[in-house]
Order: sequence, then C-alpha cells, then structure tokens
Amino acid sequence: MDNFTFSQPTRIVFGRDVENRVGEEVRKYGKRVLLHYGGGSIRRTGLYDRVVASLEKAGVEWKELGGVQPNPRLSLVREGISLCRRWGADIILAVGGGSVIDSAKAIAVGVPYDGDVWDFYSGKAVPEKALPVGVILTIAAAGSEASSGSVITNEDGLYKVGTGAKCMRPVFALCNPQLTCTLPPYQTACGVVDILAHIMERYFTPQRDVDFTDRLCEAAMISIMENARRVMADPNDYNARAEIMWGGTVAHNDILGVGRRGDWSSHRVEHELSALYDIAHGAGLAIVFPAWMKHVYKYDIPRFKQFAERVFGVSSDGRSDEEVAVEGISRLEGFFNEIGLPTTISKAGLPVDQLDTMAQKCAQGSSEVGNYAKLTFDTVLRILELAK
Amino acid sequence: MDNFTFSQPTRIVFGRDVENRVGEEVRKYGKRVLLHYGGGSIRRTGLYDRVVASLEKAGVEWKELGGVQPNPRLSLVREGISLCRRWGADIILAVGGGSVIDSAKAIAVGVPYDGDVWDFYSGKAVPEKALPVGVILTIAAAGSEASSGSVITNEDGLYKVGTGAKCMRPVFALCNPQLTCTLPPYQTACGVVDILAHIMERYFTPQRDVDFTDRLCEAAMISIMENARRVMADPNDYNARAEIMWGGTVAHNDILGVGRRGDWSSHRVEHELSALYDIAHGAGLAIVFPAWMKHVYKYDIPRFKQFAERVFGVSSDGRSDEEVAVEGISRLEGFFNEIGLPTTISKAGLPVDQLDTMAQKCAQGSSEVGNYAKLTFDTVLRILELAK
Repeated sequence: MDNFTFSQPTRIVFGRDVENRVGEEVRKYGKRVLLHYGGGSIRRTGLYDRVVASLEKAGVEWKELGGVQPNPRLSLVREGISLCRRWGADIILAVGGGSVIDSAKAIAVGVPYDGDVWDFYSGKAVPEKALPVGVILTIAAAGSEASSGSVITNEDGLYKVGTGAKCMRPVFALCNPQLTCTLPPYQTACGVVDILAHIMERYFTPQRDVDFTDRLCEAAMISIMENARRVMADPNDYNARAEIMWGGTVAHNDILGVGRRGDWSSHRVEHELSALYDIAHGAGLAIVFPAWMKHVYKYDIPRFKQFAERVFGVSSDGRSDEEVAVEGISRLEGFFNEIGLPTTISKAGLPVDQLDTMAQKCAQGSSEVGNYAKLTFDTVLRILELAK
Repeated sequence: MDNFTFSQPTRIVFGRDVENRVGEEVRKYGKRVLLHYGGGSIRRTGLYDRVVASLEKAGVEWKELGGVQPNPRLSLVREGISLCRRWGADIILAVGGGSVIDSAKAIAVGVPYDGDVWDFYSGKAVPEKALPVGVILTIAAAGSEASSGSVITNEDGLYKVGTGAKCMRPVFALCNPQLTCTLPPYQTACGVVDILAHIMERYFTPQRDVDFTDRLCEAAMISIMENARRVMADPNDYNARAEIMWGGTVAHNDILGVGRRGDWSSHRVEHELSALYDIAHGAGLAIVFPAWMKHVYKYDIPRFKQFAERVFGVSSDGRSDEEVAVEGISRLEGFFNEIGLPTTISKAGLPVDQLDTMAQKCAQGSSEVGNYAKLTFDTVLRILELAK
C-alpha cells in the first residue's frame, strides 16, 4: 500500500428536502452569491424558485449565470469570472450536475487569479486560492460535489482537460435524491456508468496489497448495479435513487482510491470522444471502458479475474483464468446494454472515421497516463478500434 | 435511508515514517503542545525520542503528561486540564491508541470550559469549544483518531461513559502501520475485535434500504478478518497491518454509519464489564457481542442471515433461515477464538458473581440504547447470562 493523505472536508447534507436550507448554508460564506446552472430544467421543476426563495429569506444577494452545457465551456467560465469580479461575489452556488459544478469550480479559481484561468487546465499554473463553491446536486454521476477536480472544454480546438486542487473542493453539497427522480432513463444510465467508471479507474491497478479498498470498491459496484436496475424498473424509487446518489459521491471523493494508483486511461480516451461528438460523458465511458479492458486485461489477468468473480459472481468451474477475466468484461458490457447504453461507437450512431484524430489528440496530452499501457498514439488507436 | 450529514475533516496522513512530520503538523496549530501518552512503551520503542526531536526541530515548546491507563481516568484528565490552563497550551498531541486519544479529547474540551469536564460525560453540558487535538496512532482499534467521540472512566463509582461533538474530532492523525508491528498478539486481537464491533454496531439495524452501506460494511469486515489472520501468522506483515489500521479508521469515522441508526448495545454492556474488571475493551467486546447477537437475532432473522451469508459465506442449503443466522454468530465466535480471544466471561477468567450489579448500572445510564431490545435491567442481565 502506498503512503497517502486523506480528508473529506466537504459537508454533505443528504436526504429529502435538504435543498431548502441553501440560503442559510450560503449565508455562512458571504452575502453575494453567483447562482450557476445549466438549461431550463431547474426552472421547469420549480427548483429555481425554491432556491431563490431560500436565498432571499436568508438575506443573500444573488446574480445568476445559466447556460452551462454538458461539456462545460471555457467561454462561459470566463464570463462568470468577469461577472464575479465586477460584482464582488463571495461564493459560487452550483445547481446541477458535474458540468455545472466543474464550471463553478473553474470560475471559483479564476476570480482571484491574475492570469487566464485556462493556465490551470493547460498545466501552466497550479490553483492555490479559490472562492468557496456550494452545490445543490441534481444528478448522480460525476462525484464533483465532493471532489477536488474540474474538467473544462476549450472550444478553441475542442480540448477537454481537467485540473484539481484542494482549494477547489466544494464547502458544502446539498444532495436530495428526490431531485433525481425526474431524470430520463438515458441520463440516469449515463450517470450510473460514470459512477462505476470512477470506481473502476481506481480499482484496476497493478498494485497488490490493497485488499481493504479492493473490497470496498467491489461492494460499491455491486450495490450501484443492483440499485440501477431498481431505478430503471421504477424511476421514483427513492431509496434506490438515494443509494446511487450517495454511491456517486463515495465513488469519487477518493476514499476508494487511497494507497493505490488509479489508471484513468478510459476517462482520457473518452474525453476525446465527447469533445468531438459532444455525447454524454457516461455514454462515452460505456463505449470506451470495455474496449480499454479488452486491450489491457492480459497485463493483469489475476485482477480482472478477481473483478469477474467478486463483482459478477463468474464461476471458474471449467474456465481458465483468462476466460473468467474475459467473461467479467462481457458481463459489464451486458449490464451497460441492460440499462440502455450501446457499447460501441457505431451502435451509438457515431461515425468511426476520426479515430486517428482522436488518438492523436489524446496521445498529445496524456501519454503518461495509464497503469497497464501508457496512452501513446498506438495504444489509443487500438482501444478506439476495439470500441468501433 | 435516513437523512444525514457527513464530513470527515480530520487530515489522515498514512504510511511509513509519517510520524516524523509531527513537528511541522503541530506547528500549524500553535507553539505550545501538551504531549499526552500512556505507559513506557513509546519510550522503549524510541518513538518518544523521535517525537520530541521533531517538535524541537519545528520550534515547538512541549510539556508532557503520561500515564494514561487503558480505561482512561477522569482524574488524569483533570490534571491535564489544569496543566494546560496554567501553561497556556495551544494543542494537545495524543501519542497512543484510543485511551490516550479519548483522554486528550477530554482535556481539549475541558480547558476552555468554565464548569467541570465531567458535565460533558454526565450529559449536563454539550461540548462546543475545544483545543485542537493531533494524533500519532500506535494501535489500530478504537478509531478515535478520526471520530468525534471520547469515553472516560470516572473512578468515583467506576462509571465509564462517552460523549461526542464536532469540535472534538482530531485535526490531524499520523498513522504509521509500522508502529503497530511490535504489539503483542493479544493487543492486536483486541484491536481487531474493537474494529469489527464498530462496524457491526452500525450494521445491525432494523432499517431496510441501506444496501450500499450494508455492502461496504460487509466488505470491510471480510477484509479486516482476512488481514487479522495474516498478522497473527506474521506480526511484521506491513501490508496486512496497514489494511487493519486504515480499516480501523474507516470503521469509526462514520462513513459506514450514514443514513442508518446504529445499535451500540454491545458497547454499552461492555463498558460495565471493563469498568468493573479493567479488561481490554476489545476483549470485553469479544464476550459481549456474540451474547448480544444470541439475544436479539430473532428480532431480525433476515439481517442476521444476510450477515452469515455475505460475511462468512454460510450456505443456506439444507438450513432454515434461523439456522443460517445462528451459524453466522457461531462463525464470528469461532473467529474471535481463532485469534486467541475467549468469548465467555468465565473462559476469560473473570468472576460471574456481579452480573446483577453490572446490569443495574448499565440500565441506569443506557435504557434508551438498542435497536432490537432496549437496555433495561432484564435485557442486560439476559445478555450477561448468555455471556457467562
């Protein structure tokens, strides 16, 4: 086990109706809040009105910046930074999912920084100061509500890259599973894949002697899949929604990654797919993850076998270790299909004529990523070929 | 699932040699530290000298108060409070296990309080302010390094009771598994039982729809037991020691208890046993927990069956649900015996003539505790009879 440091200072307030406390929570951090959100759904569901009522009741002034898109754009981040500076915002409130939260974090580090906020994403600078970010979570997926990371897309060249720092971790997150009951099945499924992928990126490591966390990861994956099936059968199942929402936070607050090196290849390859075609991150991961597994399982058959046996109950009777490992990958694909997600680029209705371009871009930025196989042009192309 | 709030602000610094950073960690919180510890073992192992060297290098002034006993005493806490007040300590550093940390927390809340520190334990007052507490952990057991609780024994009547508050959570904990390699098998085993008991107190709840956390609890228990066997076979197995040490923190930092009501009956009954006979808390739990299970399993056979099946792999072939449940309890007893701990009062060499006294005391303080059966005199006596 590697040495590590862990803390999870984000105060998670979880359960029914917790979003109605947002005014008092925000008030702890200041008097002026930028209300940041995506499209019109929070207005349609009445969430917007409740948030504004709570802020006003707490005596908090607010300005708003909506319009965050699924792969959040640098241009909107810059607009947010400029608005916060002019007005003197004390805190950013993200009402939405991973994209809105990531965009809020980018604004939060951009405001006190002298240079261009993209410096943090291009690796030119390290975030050291940020405005506090609060969250009302509306989709279980990205885990950004308690993580220190943020991923932004630069429209100038369609670069989708991430950064992270302690100061970017939200100070509070209000997580009400009821808010996710109105999500369409496709978005729910994309969220579930994102959560599973966050666990698997940590789980697949060549390190031995990380047994305690291995088992927590396996337990989390089993429960997420069971509860995803319940939600697919009944979108209003509060308890199943709650398990998935809390699972999404635990999957990415790093308690499942301590003492071990995660892989993150699938995330990096997927970023090229969603940057180019603007598909949902979870839908992209449902395609890339199985392809990545098919490419790398041979480097670590014992671990892929353990995954197959413990997560999917694959029996080793009459099967070689490799066959058990391969069957695990196939069961995972089967689960993605079961919740309605295609697992190849073509079945997702996307063109397969730009694999080279994607491989090139990915290899440019990420060739050092990957435990089992570094993301060179050849590796990425091979993974994308397997994903065709 | 119940609504809940969760955060884990204690910064855990985990791994080889991390205790050597103690000076710089303490320095973040002030210039004067009370070094609080137990017996002579930290001197014998050289840990004491390394701690002092690190404090001096960081320019921190220190005074010391050793002599914390296994069930930490109120009188020493009062001595610590008076010392800290006279000298103006900024922070308390606990070097030891649960007893030392609990004693440090009691001193920390006592210093800024006008009344008598026992008020917090007797329920007369609620802790709201405390000096910061830092920890160097030397035994994996109590989980006090990242919890908000503290248990103290009042020698005047041998009352052993707990309190807890946000302000009592340590600000940092330096956890080096190497420090636990010199522990004798008996103490190691007692620690393992304490860790398992913290998980089981949370696990055994009549609530349904707490599946995600159920599975994390089961995963944690399986891994703790596997690694305990490795440590019993080879006390110097760093990786197994590391899994247990981190498991001990996770077991009690409350991530395994969110959204559900824990039971805590076994802990309360055990406190009477260790207050009266001064045996190790873990040794007492190895006796009380199986007895408590035998008393309450009938109230929730499905949960005790799930425990037997998922944690011990008990097969239900040819067994009734109740038989599966009972077999699970028997396997747990078997595990405690396997690591060298007796599971009855008499096998532990203790007299059984004071069950009434213990039952009376326990019922006085705790009759509202317990999910399946409240701790009345009759209930406690029945559990103690089963533990004879």
